[in-house]
Amino acid sequence: MSIKVFLNEDEIPRQWYNLAPDLPSPLQPPIGPDGTPVPPQGWYKIFPENLIEQEYSQKRWLDIPDEILKILYRWRPSPLRRAVYLEEALGTPAKIYYKDESVSPAGSHKPNTAVAQAWYNKQFGTKTITTETGAGQWGSALSFSCGLVGLECKVFMVRISFDQKPFRKMMMQTWGANCVASPSNETNAGRSFLEKDPDTPGSLGMAISEAIEAAVADSSGATKYSLGSVLNHVLMHQTIIGLEAKKQLAKIGVGKPDIVIGCAGGGSNFAGLAFPFTYDKINGADIEIIPVEPTSCPTMTRGLFAYDFGDTAGTTPLAPMHTLGHSFVPPPIHAGGLRYHGMAPLVSQAIVEGLFAPRSIHQIECYQGAVQWARTEGIIPAPETSHAIAAVIQEALKAKQEGKEKTILFNLSGHGLMDLVGYNKYFEGELSDYALPQEEIDKTEEELKDYPKAQINKSGKW
Amino acid sequence: MSIKVFLNEDEIPRQWYNLAPDLPSPLQPPIGPDGTPVPPQGWYKIFPENLIEQEYSQKRWLDIPDEILKILYRWRPSPLRRAVYLEEALGTPAKIYYKDESVSPAGSHKPNTAVAQAWYNKQFGTKTITTETGAGQWGSALSFSCGLVGLECKVFMVRISFDQKPFRKMMMQTWGANCVASPSNETNAGRSFLEKDPDTPGSLGMAISEAIEAAVADSSGATKYSLGSVLNHVLMHQTIIGLEAKKQLAKIGVGKPDIVIGCAGGGSNFAGLAFPFTYDKINGADIEIIPVEPTSCPTMTRGLFAYDFGDTAGTTPLAPMHTLGHSFVPPPIHAGGLRYHGMAPLVSQAIVEGLFAPRSIHQIECYQGAVQWARTEGIIPAPETSHAIAAVIQEALKAKQEGKEKTILFNLSGHGLMDLVGYNKYFEGELSDYALPQEEIDKTEEELKDYPKAQINKSGKW
Repeated sequence: MSIKVFLNEDEIPRQWYNLAPDLPSPLQPPIGPDGTPVPPQGWYKIFPENLIEQEYSQKRWLDIPDEILKILYRWRPSPLRRAVYLEEALGTPAKIYYKDESVSPAGSHKPNTAVAQAWYNKQFGTKTITTETGAGQWGSALSFSCGLVGLECKVFMVRISFDQKPFRKMMMQTWGANCVASPSNETNAGRSFLEKDPDTPGSLGMAISEAIEAAVADSSGATKYSLGSVLNHVLMHQTIIGLEAKKQLAKIGVGKPDIVIGCAGGGSNFAGLAFPFTYDKINGADIEIIPVEPTSCPTMTRGLFAYDFGDTAGTTPLAPMHTLGHSFVPPPIHAGGLRYHGMAPLVSQAIVEGLFAPRSIHQIECYQGAVQWARTEGIIPAPETSHAIAAVIQEALKAKQEGKEKTILFNLSGHGLMDLVGYNKYFEGELSDYALPQEEIDKTEEELKDYPKAQINKSGKW
Repeated sequence: MSIKVFLNEDEIPRQWYNLAPDLPSPLQPPIGPDGTPVPPQGWYKIFPENLIEQEYSQKRWLDIPDEILKILYRWRPSPLRRAVYLEEALGTPAKIYYKDESVSPAGSHKPNTAVAQAWYNKQFGTKTITTETGAGQWGSALSFSCGLVGLECKVFMVRISFDQKPFRKMMMQTWGANCVASPSNETNAGRSFLEKDPDTPGSLGMAISEAIEAAVADSSGATKYSLGSVLNHVLMHQTIIGLEAKKQLAKIGVGKPDIVIGCAGGGSNFAGLAFPFTYDKINGADIEIIPVEPTSCPTMTRGLFAYDFGDTAGTTPLAPMHTLGHSFVPPPIHAGGLRYHGMAPLVSQAIVEGLFAPRSIHQIECYQGAVQWARTEGIIPAPETSHAIAAVIQEALKAKQEGKEKTILFNLSGHGLMDLVGYNKYFEGELSDYALPQEEIDKTEEELKDYPKAQINKSGKW
């Protein structure tokens, strides 16, 4: 029984897949404070033009430059594995396959886009990239990628994660980057957040505001900002995951998965695996696609689909997405990467279209799943990834109840070796579950009531 | 250009290689305090009989049970990679290949023997395994393996590492094990060490004494002890690394490496890669084989080849090996796994035979190499592994000077994601180099002067 499927380097996908042109109704554009669509030029202060060209692209396939593939070969193609040991433990007839994105040197899927973004920035003439990071996965990945490509890298790390995960900073330093806790005193935005609440745990939204300000502040234009999720081009860079998975499943004669699962904070690892299968679904394949989020930060399952800012200070354009409001400060759960108030517009719109069936799961069930995974499959998963695992276990047990031999595919987006404090708290019984109170949802509606509405014509096909 | 070579599961080696019968002169036996050889029965209190049978085996090849292979398939066969990015950075004509043992869920080569030992113990009827750990790699690996096989696991972790690496304990806990700092108050040996020096940083020798005592103290016989290196059967379990590497090199048409390198603390990762090539060398192949150690703990390069205890309290049989004396407490360098006073008898005897050319390297040069590796190849290596990398860089630069296209093969024994405190100290300039003073070496001679001499008849062939 083969439990690993490898691809050779010459089998690596040579194009990224762009879901935008295949969405049943056109993707709604980002808009400015005046309500008019933001043209590509509106982004040039913070992003290089070549990446913005991708952001607006309506081409289904975009070539991956050979130089980027050469960098990715360090760990790609990543293995597809079958979780035979977990299947056995669960006694399920389901077959559970997963892409192991934990094998990258940074330990997650994030370098797939970090490498691409660093490379395109380098081509464009950028000298320094600024960014934010939550759990630290993205900051590590961008540090790693900038180090390989030869760019300076400055990371604003959400304070609660910075404090909980001191080793993340050392990791970024080893790859040559500079990492500070956010809110920091280095930007106007940071100082203003600290003034309001000196003890704030920080949030991704705040850190984004700081990183953007730090980029724009360089009047030479040689400093650009980079985002690890949410944007169209970021999600597109991640589709190499799902495209590899398709080739790997084909190699072992699996026509299609019945269920595709990924955890979703900003949406990038979920989209990376799911979008190539979404293409199949749009074209008639019967696939259930499930993005999973924490019950404490239920963007997709309880948030509004509305135009909102990507950051807390309101410096970004307004994007059409599921959101809990840009001023939302999520509770300090340990899945730092899933504490974002919004969701990628591409994912959000596909949810509204009915293509995805989002699900929220409580923290403790996720840790239970993560520990069961570690003690059967071996790898200690990232707390974010544990949300996907918990959903996989739910689906595998459902298949057992129904006596159905379903094929489940999920994204093991990262390992948890830098996140053991959360595991320790789980074992010490210090974690609790937390469902967002309805008042918080109501506040969002109030906060966004004067903004343009995000409306699409649902095709009603799914 | 292919930079990764995979093997399918059905290509995994199905036998371990045992160097003992191929050593030019017979391996000297372990002896008791009375100077007579210890028979297999002498070990039964602490090890299960099936593993001791392997320890004394003179068979060249031992079958690997299918059940063990089924466990190893989680990550084995491990990839063989070519370090093209480092080669480019060094401008060397040398071709640098490495086995990536960091891909195991525990992050190092250690599970290769931990899984085998846990499995054989389970077969034998053992319920609990005790062990010691230095840097934490071994304790993690045994915790992981006991969790998979269904055994209790108790780990005594050298205090300095326990304090420097709190996340190691959480990792072991996640896999279901129990880890305490050593010396502890749980054993007579531990209490006596603490009485002598309440602030002792601990040592592998002390932790071994505690773990053995804890095993023997269970009068039911259901608790056994496990060692992560040094012993013959442990080294044999690791030879799967070198045997895979041979198959992988053959796949890409590389006849043999010119140089084989591994770091060596107790000797297991080095032996795992090197022994299958040592067989070739004994049979006429021209291969330079280099075990690398820290200059601060120069067991192979400056220690005596003598009979000495494996632990500090003197509870083990005397083994013929390179040693700095069983009371040696090494300086608190960050390569915790290389702080052992002795060296595997099989490795030691091969050194005396001239088969290996041991080398010692200072701590700072190792970190320099590790950072260069991380910024070119990507993976942040374990501090232990950095010794191998530093030697690889020395050899690659030598090849450049000589204009020779040498093939270098080394073992990337583990990643350093749990060891970032050392990197941080390196960047902060807090590390210094330390060469062991001659008095320390002289003390060893004095300590061992009344013990039987370890003498072999060198064949003088290498």
